[in-house]
Amino acid sequence: MTTSLPARSVRKRNAIMSAGRQLFLTHGYRGTSVDQIAAAAEVSKQTVYKHFTDKRELLLAIVTEVLDGAVTPFLDQVSDLAQTSHLERDLARLAGSYLRSVLDASVVQLRRLVIGEANALPELAEMYYQRAPARTLRAFADIFEVLDARGLLRIVQPGLAARQFAFLVVGHAIDEALFYGGPRTLADLDVDEHVRAAIRTFFAAYRPIPEP
Amino acid sequence: MTTSLPARSVRKRNAIMSAGRQLFLTHGYRGTSVDQIAAAAEVSKQTVYKHFTDKRELLLAIVTEVLDGAVTPFLDQVSDLAQTSHLERDLARLAGSYLRSVLDASVVQLRRLVIGEANALPELAEMYYQRAPARTLRAFADIFEVLDARGLLRIVQPGLAARQFAFLVVGHAIDEALFYGGPRTLADLDVDEHVRAAIRTFFAAYRPIPEP
Repeated sequence: MTTSLPARSVRKRNAIMSAGRQLFLTHGYRGTSVDQIAAAAEVSKQTVYKHFTDKRELLLAIVTEVLDGAVTPFLDQVSDLAQTSHLERDLARLAGSYLRSVLDASVVQLRRLVIGEANALPELAEMYYQRAPARTLRAFADIFEVLDARGLLRIVQPGLAARQFAFLVVGHAIDEALFYGGPRTLADLDVDEHVRAAIRTFFAAYRPIPEP
Repeated sequence: MTTSLPARSVRKRNAIMSAGRQLFLTHGYRGTSVDQIAAAAEVSKQTVYKHFTDKRELLLAIVTEVLDGAVTPFLDQVSDLAQTSHLERDLARLAGSYLRSVLDASVVQLRRLVIGEANALPELAEMYYQRAPARTLRAFADIFEVLDARGLLRIVQPGLAARQFAFLVVGHAIDEALFYGGPRTLADLDVDEHVRAAIRTFFAAYRPIPEP
C-alpha cells in the first residue's frame, strides 16, 4: 500500500502547523525561525514554503486554527442559552466555561504573542480581535436580545449589556493573566464564587423586578 | 562657567532614558539595540553601561518611571473622592479620567511591550502589574470602604467591588486597545456615555436603596 500524495501533503502541513504553534507560543514570533520550524516538523525548509508563503502566513494560519477551535464550540454553548429554563444556573455555567477558556494556558500565550506583535503585524491583531473577542461579544448581545424577548432580562442596549457581562466575568482575570500567565491566575481564582459575584451585579442591573 | 559632572551625568542619564523609551515603544524590546539607544541619546555605548547594567535594567527603569508618572497622580484623584459631596458626578469624573489614562497611546504601547515580553521577562511583567493595575485596584477598594462607611455605597467586599468597577469602566476598552491601539479605541468611544453606563450598573449593585 502506498500513501497517496495528498494525504502525505496534509500530514506534512499538519506537522508544520503543530511545530510552528509550539515554537511560536514558547519562543515568540521573532524568536522562532522557519529553519527551526522545519527541523521540529521534520520537513525541509522548502516544504514549509510550499505550504506557506512566509513565516507570517504560517502564524496567521495557526492563529486562525487555534481560535476557531476554541471559540466556535463556545459560541454554540452561548446560543443554547436561548432555551434555558433556569437562567441563573445556566448563565453561571456559561460564564464559568468562558472564564476557564480565556485562562487556558495556550490561549493566554497566543494573546500575549499577538499583542506583543500588534505594532509589527496589525492585520494579525485585527484578525484575532474579530475572530475571538468581537464574535464572543456579538454572541452575548444576540442571546441577551432573545432573553429580553422572553422577559428573563430587561436589555435596552444588547451590545452594552454584552460588554458589561463579558468584562464582569473575565475582565480582571484576563488582565492579570496577560502579566502572570493563565495557570497562575486560574490557580488563585475561585471560579464559581467569582462567577456568582459577576452575575449578581449583572442581574442587579438587568434582571426585571418580578411583578408582585 | 563649567557644567558640574553630576549635572552632566544626570542629563546623559535622562537622554538615555528618553531615547530608550522612544525606541522601545516604537520597535519593541528585542527590536532595539543598546547601540541604537546610545546613538539616539548621543552618548557612547560605554556611557549607557555606566548608568545601566544592561538593556533589561534600562527597560525596567523606563517602565518604572512611566508608570509612576501616570499612576501616582491618578491615585491622588481616587483618594480625593473620600470628601465627595456628589458621588455620581465625582465618580463619573474619576472614571472618565481613568478610561482616558489607560487609553493613552504610550500607556497602551508600554502594556503591549510588557505583555509581549512576559515570557522572557516575567519580573518585568510582575513589576508592571504590581505598580499599575494592582495599585489602582487597591486604591479603589480603599475608597469604596470609605464611601461605605459614609453610607454612600453598600460594599461588603471592597476588593470585589473595586475589580467590578474597574472592569465595567475600562475592561472592554483596554482589551480592544491592546489589539487596535489606544488612539483608535478612544476615537470610537463616547467616554461620557460609556462611563455613565458603567456607573449605572455599578450603582444598581452597590448603591443603598434610599429609605422612604
